[in-house]
Amino acid sequence: MTTHHFVATSFHNVIGTIPAALKVASGDIVITRTIDAAGYDEEDVQRATGPNPMIGPIFVEGAEPGDSLRVEILEMTPTRDIGFTRSVVAANVIDPETVRDLPRSDKTLWEIDRQAMTVRLKEPVAGIENLVLPLSPMVGCFGVAPSLGQAISTATSGEHGGNMDYRVFGPGTTVWFPIFSPGALFFLGDCHAIQGDGEIVGTGVETTFEVTVRLSVEKAKPMSWPRAETADDIITVGNARPLDQALQHATTEMLTVLITDYKLTRVAASHLLGQVVRYDIGNVFDPAYTVACRVAKKWLPSR
Amino acid sequence: MTTHHFVATSFHNVIGTIPAALKVASGDIVITRTIDAAGYDEEDVQRATGPNPMIGPIFVEGAEPGDSLRVEILEMTPTRDIGFTRSVVAANVIDPETVRDLPRSDKTLWEIDRQAMTVRLKEPVAGIENLVLPLSPMVGCFGVAPSLGQAISTATSGEHGGNMDYRVFGPGTTVWFPIFSPGALFFLGDCHAIQGDGEIVGTGVETTFEVTVRLSVEKAKPMSWPRAETADDIITVGNARPLDQALQHATTEMLTVLITDYKLTRVAASHLLGQVVRYDIGNVFDPAYTVACRVAKKWLPSR
Amino acid sequence: MTTHHFVATSFHNVIGTIPAALKVASGDIVITRTIDAAGYDEEDVQRATGPNPMIGPIFVEGAEPGDSLRVEILEMTPTRDIGFTRSVVAANVIDPETVRDLPRSDKTLWEIDRQAMTVRLKEPVAGIENLVLPLSPMVGCFGVAPSLGQAISTATSGEHGGNMDYRVFGPGTTVWFPIFSPGALFFLGDCHAIQGDGEIVGTGVETTFEVTVRLSVEKAKPMSWPRAETADDIITVGNARPLDQALQHATTEMLTVLITDYKLTRVAASHLLGQVVRYDIGNVFDPAYTVACRVAKKWLPSR
Amino acid sequence: MTTHHFVATSFHNVIGTIPAALKVASGDIVITRTIDAAGYDEEDVQRATGPNPMIGPIFVEGAEPGDSLRVEILEMTPTRDIGFTRSVVAANVIDPETVRDLPRSDKTLWEIDRQAMTVRLKEPVAGIENLVLPLSPMVGCFGVAPSLGQAISTATSGEHGGNMDYRVFGPGTTVWFPIFSPGALFFLGDCHAIQGDGEIVGTGVETTFEVTVRLSVEKAKPMSWPRAETADDIITVGNARPLDQALQHATTEMLTVLITDYKLTRVAASHLLGQVVRYDIGNVFDPAYTVACRVAKKWLPSR
Repeated sequence: MTTHHFVATSFHNVIGTIPAALKVASGDIVITRTIDAAGYDEEDVQRATGPNPMIGPIFVEGAEPGDSLRVEILEMTPTRDIGFTRSVVAANVIDPETVRDLPRSDKTLWEIDRQAMTVRLKEPVAGIENLVLPLSPMVGCFGVAPSLGQAISTATSGEHGGNMDYRVFGPGTTVWFPIFSPGALFFLGDCHAIQGDGEIVGTGVETTFEVTVRLSVEKAKPMSWPRAETADDIITVGNARPLDQALQHATTEMLTVLITDYKLTRVAASHLLGQVVRYDIGNVFDPAYTVACRVAKKWLPSR
Repeated sequence: MTTHHFVATSFHNVIGTIPAALKVASGDIVITRTIDAAGYDEEDVQRATGPNPMIGPIFVEGAEPGDSLRVEILEMTPTRDIGFTRSVVAANVIDPETVRDLPRSDKTLWEIDRQAMTVRLKEPVAGIENLVLPLSPMVGCFGVAPSLGQAISTATSGEHGGNMDYRVFGPGTTVWFPIFSPGALFFLGDCHAIQGDGEIVGTGVETTFEVTVRLSVEKAKPMSWPRAETADDIITVGNARPLDQALQHATTEMLTVLITDYKLTRVAASHLLGQVVRYDIGNVFDPAYTVACRVAKKWLPSR
Repeated sequence: MTTHHFVATSFHNVIGTIPAALKVASGDIVITRTIDAAGYDEEDVQRATGPNPMIGPIFVEGAEPGDSLRVEILEMTPTRDIGFTRSVVAANVIDPETVRDLPRSDKTLWEIDRQAMTVRLKEPVAGIENLVLPLSPMVGCFGVAPSLGQAISTATSGEHGGNMDYRVFGPGTTVWFPIFSPGALFFLGDCHAIQGDGEIVGTGVETTFEVTVRLSVEKAKPMSWPRAETADDIITVGNARPLDQALQHATTEMLTVLITDYKLTRVAASHLLGQVVRYDIGNVFDPAYTVACRVAKKWLPSR
Repeated sequence: MTTHHFVATSFHNVIGTIPAALKVASGDIVITRTIDAAGYDEEDVQRATGPNPMIGPIFVEGAEPGDSLRVEILEMTPTRDIGFTRSVVAANVIDPETVRDLPRSDKTLWEIDRQAMTVRLKEPVAGIENLVLPLSPMVGCFGVAPSLGQAISTATSGEHGGNMDYRVFGPGTTVWFPIFSPGALFFLGDCHAIQGDGEIVGTGVETTFEVTVRLSVEKAKPMSWPRAETADDIITVGNARPLDQALQHATTEMLTVLITDYKLTRVAASHLLGQVVRYDIGNVFDPAYTVACRVAKKWLPSR
């Protein structure tokens, strides 16, 4: 097992079949530095343009279509004291006739206190002067080269992952992506210091991070949608519009997990999900929305 | 303050402007017994037919259009040892082309252990033989007479409440409904011993309960959608299809709460929601879906 | 067969089980005068308030649940020289982020030339000074008392019909509604001098009409959704949000028609629909949207 | 003006920035032969695999981002006597709980009579033995390289065009695509002998064609979505899920056309659209649905 300190020299606004910037063995650790969603690095130097410039791709040896890529998010350390958000909820998350009442959205700065591990608005805003939030790092956009040689904008997401903006994708979470191309071709970027459900202002607190991941190939483990696991839960993720369809994808994938990995019938899986399933809304802002289907491990049969 | 022991003698499949079965003063407590979603009572005697027969309506003195009805759910005690569910996830929560793989749904019995406060399948199902779930009582369907003299099926929900099937509506939660008719005309029924997010098998564990609520009028408190409060959170609820529109209603109502009750500007409210909001999917099965917008009180400014 | 000249003395904002204002035999003709969507009559006197006040209900003798009500729209004659529209497209039919660019909607008057059978703006609007449209009468809202004793707002629609705002529902078209209550209880109102697809400004040219319909019971003809027939086409109608679900309802009902009335298998029906079906968007404004599924009679096998 | 007889030697399952197979001048005519959606050519030899293999890309000299590409569909001549369809309506166009009643879909052959210009099932199907349909050629999938260097599957569509499956895209229709890459990079394929609205069996009658198009650059003519024109109508096209969003895109683009090209205010444009707009459902099957917004030229002011 090797640890790679990977310094990106170019950045990508699509996730696709692009020449690899780094080759690693399955099980290797990669430590890298991401730039923010607008392309600025930890020194606030613009290195790329939006949307969501990615580092990578990273070629993982042995990865073939039909396998899956396990991505363990081991550590995320902010590398800058400033993050930014948009200042107004997105027009698509409120009743259409009330959109006229919204001001235009501005870029707003937030302070990241790396000692205290907190986040707060740089300029006080009346009524929420005392809002100090815990640093809650997450990866907004990551994934692998999609099927058919497609190259898909990092503004959106799909079976291959991408811009899911799901706040559970932080340190301690392991994510699996279906592999469509030799080497998987892993991309990563767009990290947030914190973000609510749905990313409803169109951003989390966008900033730069040092991210440590372990990348491993799981052979012959086909899946249709990304999957994840935390200390407490197993998770499947659907990316689509509307939310209804994202939820259908996630639920269908969870049924597959329960049938395939836990050997449940559709009826047993239904009894379980019917009474214990949890749904999270990852994002309800990007071109494809993200819904996660989550089941606590304590309710699962042993595998 | 009076406590009414209300025994329903007729049940209703619509929520509407119907002669009151009980009159109470604002602040009174009502203790009543609900029958299950199929119309069976605690002795397993059929007293009504589905969908979701309601007790009520209860006329609350002093309630007028433009006020709101505060419903404190004080206690819910199961009155039967048996509940039922459907056995297969609903066709609308999985990818359409996979529906053909689903078996037909049956009625399945669950045991409710009122000592241990647990719920389990009456007949073991292979793979989940050991699944024992905590009793988690909730009200599936409740609300007040809707606007315009409408009478709306208890299968669905709207601004007036109704069949929201949101698992957070249990003991300890307070719910507010907008009032459209003199006396509010409160209806209640369809209680569940437990239910997952989304009610994706089309039921929770449907059974009978003794329910204790306190009903109070809050004068001149208009609202567009139901609101709620738990020990930790404030909540707004949107009922509509698709999920996207339910979420729009809930988010719009939360903006109204933050602007009106917490004196935030739209920008301040957006900063808060953008980084801390949580969304719950109440139901994704009934004709109208339910999405809750939830904010932890710890992030709110003092009122 | 009797012709009834029915003069409404009260108007209704819900379609529901309400005491009949008129009783007719199956096959009778009713000639009546409707008021406009805002409640004004042909003399511009306010007789009721919105939304969409209905005449009726009309009890049709012999109608029982499980039958259907055939409504032949025989004639529609405008009874006023003035109609009105809203002036700006609805916020929900354009991209959400562009809603801020829309002005607020006003009430705008249109002239109805009953000699020339044309419609034009009363005050010229720059750029469309010469827009003169053909009078194209249609019924915006009609239907029968819904199931379960429900009373549903005339702002929306459902299995029982209601505010479908489908421009094909004009003279020469025959419509069938499923019957849920004895006597069917037919309601009618909200007629338009013309309307585009989708009713995207939230109105057609709203005015008053003399409407002549023949109401007939077809025994033992169950249906799930309204159906219709014109000189050229057979039609089924779905009412729901989003458009996707309205389309699902309409298509499912058309499959039922082809299987039941035309004795086609699902495969034969699919071959036919796949290559010749037409979809119309009735309304994309009201709480429930309306999609019509239409098949030209020339492609149908003989019944 | 040159006429190019272009014989494709390779085919593409994505629309993206790929080395050009042909360079033409603006205004040139291209005559080419397409293969069917499954990759079979006019001799029924498999030349590529699905989805929807495209000829191209064609580099049009002078085309730059911000321009638009005008594609006049001059002629479409079928080059084979056989086409195919799927045999069962797609699961997503009917009510989810009724999907279990559908048989599985098979590939079904259709005869194309190139003399009579008709299409019929090769093997008679009971009930529709006499169904003989007019040959109604259309292009299912065409468009230009999308933004950001993306390469997008020919199964779906977007701002760049793609698999719109809109039956109006046939001979006599002119289509405009926004240009994102130098040379525009035009792709074409997936032609149908006939198709109903929505492509609800998942195919039209899929076959091979000789297609003649003229490709012209219109400088400095930015647009957000494809536009089109027939003898009678101007058209804008939105591609997205659900139908509601596709309709929003198309309507927003039509507003832009009316404001920009016809110098109407938003109010004047609303008056026009409100009473005369027509919507067509291109496809309701592919990952992105297609809705067209259509206005008859006879109602438009002179430009």
